[in-house]
Amino acid sequence: MPKEIERKFLVANDGWRAQARAGKRLRQAYLAATDAAAIRVRIADDAVAFLTIKSATPGMSRDEFEYEIPVADAEAMLAMRVGEIIEKVRYAIPCEDGDLTVDVFSGANAGLVMAEIELASEDVVPALPDWIGDEITRDRRFYNANLAEHPFGSWATDAR
Amino acid sequence: MPKEIERKFLVANDGWRAQARAGKRLRQAYLAATDAAAIRVRIADDAVAFLTIKSATPGMSRDEFEYEIPVADAEAMLAMRVGEIIEKVRYAIPCEDGDLTVDVFSGANAGLVMAEIELASEDVVPALPDWIGDEITRDRRFYNANLAEHPFGSWATDAR
Repeated sequence: MPKEIERKFLVANDGWRAQARAGKRLRQAYLAATDAAAIRVRIADDAVAFLTIKSATPGMSRDEFEYEIPVADAEAMLAMRVGEIIEKVRYAIPCEDGDLTVDVFSGANAGLVMAEIELASEDVVPALPDWIGDEITRDRRFYNANLAEHPFGSWATDAR
Repeated sequence: MPKEIERKFLVANDGWRAQARAGKRLRQAYLAATDAAAIRVRIADDAVAFLTIKSATPGMSRDEFEYEIPVADAEAMLAMRVGEIIEKVRYAIPCEDGDLTVDVFSGANAGLVMAEIELASEDVVPALPDWIGDEITRDRRFYNANLAEHPFGSWATDAR
């Protein structure tokens, strides 16, 4: 079964920008998020689209099934979503220990910048750049499914 | 956008069996059913599997997006379901006006036998065989997503 092992962090400063490759514009929404699964539609650069099923296990490892679908199907499915459309630009950053990305959110989640590192196993201790801030892997507020229902822009300032 | 136009009926007697082609064993479950969409996994004869997104519009016409997926993925996704696994054998019946099928349910929905006819347009008035019983197209209790949450076997006898 395909597993996704990733750790998530806030970003402490703009140091990552010097290393970032060209960004990819992502629009995504959830068709549903239950106790067991989240069903996501994602469109990248208006050119390619995916339907993704993720198990709802909290923490680093989640089962993930992803299928490429026609962009026109994905556009129509956005209308069947729960919550907001999540808009972000994803930047890839060179990193030895796994795939490191920085997501700069816009729209309802403007102001949020989040780094994710995808690891080959849970035992890998990645060497993290100094612009990496607090770890939020287990903080459910930062799950994209929750950012669709309760966008960053709606959080009370003192709760951030 | 792909549309599914279908009418559903109860079955009044066993007259259909004489015309039925070989049955196909279907196991299916819902990953979620929201006000806007139902997300279904279906495995046919343990040999082929589909992930299907249907809009939740009540009545004859629903948007439907269906993708073939690996059977192993579908088996794993059954564990992420809401409600029961729906088990049924689907029989195709020759019919001039559209695709006519009879579903004989087992498991939690044992006792339910339902006919569906898929039409090219809502204006087609199909010639229906005499074994066709009451129309249930708009009766939400018979939606498969509802049969997963509230199986036929759990209905009170006087509510049937």
